[in-house]
Amino acid sequence: MTKFPPLLTGRDFLSNLDITPEEYRAIMDTAHAMKRGEFKGLKPLDGQTLALIFEKASLRTRTTFDVAMYQLGGHSITLSNNEIGLGTRERISDVAKNLERWVDGVMARVYLQSTLIELAEHSTIPVINGLSDFLHPVQLLADYQTIEENFGQENLSGLKVTYLGDGNNLANSHIHMGILTGAHVTVCTPVGYEPNGGVLLDAIKAGANITLTHSIDEALEGTDVLYTDVWISMGQEAEAERKRQAFAGFCVDAAMLERIKPDGVFLHCLPAHYGEEVVPEATEHRKSKVFDQAENRLHAQKALLYHVMGGQNVRW
Amino acid sequence: MTKFPPLLTGRDFLSNLDITPEEYRAIMDTAHAMKRGEFKGLKPLDGQTLALIFEKASLRTRTTFDVAMYQLGGHSITLSNNEIGLGTRERISDVAKNLERWVDGVMARVYLQSTLIELAEHSTIPVINGLSDFLHPVQLLADYQTIEENFGQENLSGLKVTYLGDGNNLANSHIHMGILTGAHVTVCTPVGYEPNGGVLLDAIKAGANITLTHSIDEALEGTDVLYTDVWISMGQEAEAERKRQAFAGFCVDAAMLERIKPDGVFLHCLPAHYGEEVVPEATEHRKSKVFDQAENRLHAQKALLYHVMGGQNVRW
Amino acid sequence: MTKFPPLLTGRDFLSNLDITPEEYRAIMDTAHAMKRGEFKGLKPLDGQTLALIFEKASLRTRTTFDVAMYQLGGHSITLSNNEIGLGTRERISDVAKNLERWVDGVMARVYLQSTLIELAEHSTIPVINGLSDFLHPVQLLADYQTIEENFGQENLSGLKVTYLGDGNNLANSHIHMGILTGAHVTVCTPVGYEPNGGVLLDAIKAGANITLTHSIDEALEGTDVLYTDVWISMGQEAEAERKRQAFAGFCVDAAMLERIKPDGVFLHCLPAHYGEEVVPEATEHRKSKVFDQAENRLHAQKALLYHVMGGQNVRW
Repeated sequence: MTKFPPLLTGRDFLSNLDITPEEYRAIMDTAHAMKRGEFKGLKPLDGQTLALIFEKASLRTRTTFDVAMYQLGGHSITLSNNEIGLGTRERISDVAKNLERWVDGVMARVYLQSTLIELAEHSTIPVINGLSDFLHPVQLLADYQTIEENFGQENLSGLKVTYLGDGNNLANSHIHMGILTGAHVTVCTPVGYEPNGGVLLDAIKAGANITLTHSIDEALEGTDVLYTDVWISMGQEAEAERKRQAFAGFCVDAAMLERIKPDGVFLHCLPAHYGEEVVPEATEHRKSKVFDQAENRLHAQKALLYHVMGGQNVRW
Repeated sequence: MTKFPPLLTGRDFLSNLDITPEEYRAIMDTAHAMKRGEFKGLKPLDGQTLALIFEKASLRTRTTFDVAMYQLGGHSITLSNNEIGLGTRERISDVAKNLERWVDGVMARVYLQSTLIELAEHSTIPVINGLSDFLHPVQLLADYQTIEENFGQENLSGLKVTYLGDGNNLANSHIHMGILTGAHVTVCTPVGYEPNGGVLLDAIKAGANITLTHSIDEALEGTDVLYTDVWISMGQEAEAERKRQAFAGFCVDAAMLERIKPDGVFLHCLPAHYGEEVVPEATEHRKSKVFDQAENRLHAQKALLYHVMGGQNVRW
Repeated sequence: MTKFPPLLTGRDFLSNLDITPEEYRAIMDTAHAMKRGEFKGLKPLDGQTLALIFEKASLRTRTTFDVAMYQLGGHSITLSNNEIGLGTRERISDVAKNLERWVDGVMARVYLQSTLIELAEHSTIPVINGLSDFLHPVQLLADYQTIEENFGQENLSGLKVTYLGDGNNLANSHIHMGILTGAHVTVCTPVGYEPNGGVLLDAIKAGANITLTHSIDEALEGTDVLYTDVWISMGQEAEAERKRQAFAGFCVDAAMLERIKPDGVFLHCLPAHYGEEVVPEATEHRKSKVFDQAENRLHAQKALLYHVMGGQNVRW
């Protein structure tokens, strides 16, 4: 572990822009090392507890954070929103001021980014965004670990990463990664489904290499990494039929994968809505790395947890 | 542990017929040793995680698998179907391909046996049947551990094990145990509630000593082990009234327990629906071993987990 | 740990009157030592499992018992009543007779005190009351740890502890603490909301220093510790509007806190219903110790668990 001193002790991780390019590099180096087994048997988070709060259902986030804490020698406790009623049964700030007395970090999957901000403001322990309607930054860490595995960490700058679909939390976080890594992020959506304007403004100010387009042809041309996500996110099922019409032509299939670069890869953060944004032929395609990507949720988040919780004094 | 080398490394356990009589013997020997405390303080599954998936409610299965992993030095994570939506939120095969990347085994309590088969087909890690509408094989391991405690392991062949009640998953698994151990399994049901025909055909082909009857008199005569289960299983409450009529006379009471052999025992996998298939006088009767049987869920499953997960390399 | 030999091995804790003043002293001494970090790294409950049963939602009780077991080197398993159906899916006595075979203790948050009594009667392992409609004894341990931190353990006798609000489970347990510690417990409620008569009778027989009043003026005069709780408890939302009328004037605000002693403190067991029994200016007031009190849930319960589970032989 001396190769990897904890670098973000006590810090929150609500957005990919909460870290610098150097800190991103340290997290990735740690994630790759963890995947190679270099932390096996070590217990850097011995005695520490991470609370996992879920306002929405989860397979990947739940399992990977839980297993991550176990493999790091620590402990996690899963709290569903039925139990704690964030902002309904109890003020968010009170929940934060309680949790910081007992646990060493909080991971929360919530609807509103403001819920995370409020949790972070009212507690001294690290708060990690496990998905909000605005951003999904831990997913992007796993995504870029997968991208580095396929293209090398030294080739991120200018790499064409194309996000095809709804301008949602994933799209926003992809733009953040363009700012952070220098990748050329192209976001291709139907008219009216563009990503968040504030995020774009940040990218422009930072001089990031971002393209917005409604043309699938333009999007696919020269793409190294093709990425999609469900159109109808958790909690938005009401507008499903309207969205299916708007996104006609955006379904990723085998033919589309033939149009990206020969050594290009296809990513999807899962779960897939087969027959909507993707077909099985795409996730099972030789260019698909979706299950490596899923696996990397574990490694990337272990690395993140190690860095934000690793240097803390255990208080009991 | 050198006395008990792991014998089923990486194998699935979807049915009692997934193991040979020799493997059954090894699991039982391990289970008896674990109950005697011979594994105390050992951590053979250190670093390993078992995912526990529940489509149906559970007290015994949930608690015993969780405690089993803890006592074996490993870890478990409970995933309710609300969270993962097997086959609804996400394809079963995708869930399998995700889980195998993070955990070292899966235990699932499901409606359909085909769900288990699909999970097993699409993952390389062991999948354990924690009850389906077709079979309940881990229950039968605990049952036979209890039977061996009362009659000796050398006396299973020809032992009269009588299952009285609905020809359900328990009845099917009892017939499997007849094939596996040579016990004389008698299944006594009302007309129309006989066990699965495919299971019976397997028993006939294997030359097992199986009797089907509708006569309670014939069933009780010379019985060593009397076994019953609820008539209305979890999720079948709709047909309750009709079943209560069909099963008139099948309620196990103290008088019935006097009619089995003097040293016979009574088993019930619990929970009991008192006033239906059993009365408190039966579960509290001197011949009742239902709470030993419940305890043995822990020991038998620990032994099973040890054998299917014990020889694996921990991957992190 | 030799300074703190386990004193209550195998004992139930359903009420604050289940312990003697000497045993209360031992638990508190242990709790203070744990908060100072004197048990850090020790694993006195290694190999032991505590089942956590919840008929009602919980943030504090759930998190603190779970973290407590982890920090003591043990394990916990959370069982919601959806899963086990206490008294509906299964007889309470059967649940008790099952659990004692697998786990080393039970903590239950229930509606009826009788559920706890039945669990305790039918199992040999310690049963801990994690809140019932009648009593909340573990909360009072944390409360008195906080009181001792502010007033010293030698000054409990005659200390004026004023409970202002509904004569509910908290009020009942406060009266118990008057019996146990010699504190002068004043319970101030609207007419018709007085605490349980049986509890009061016990206090009178014990010669405890208890005052009941409907006068807020009398209640506040000379108060060292002012305590309130929600008027509408979990599960009683139906009678909300009527209660809001009855409790007019009982809201704890900054002005009220100025009327207790200059070095007095304000406690609330949380969650707070702001705008009902309390306003944010009170919980954030310099006299408020509500978050210390919340933190002490962890330390006090760790101490309790250590004493009731600490001397047991681990059975596996």
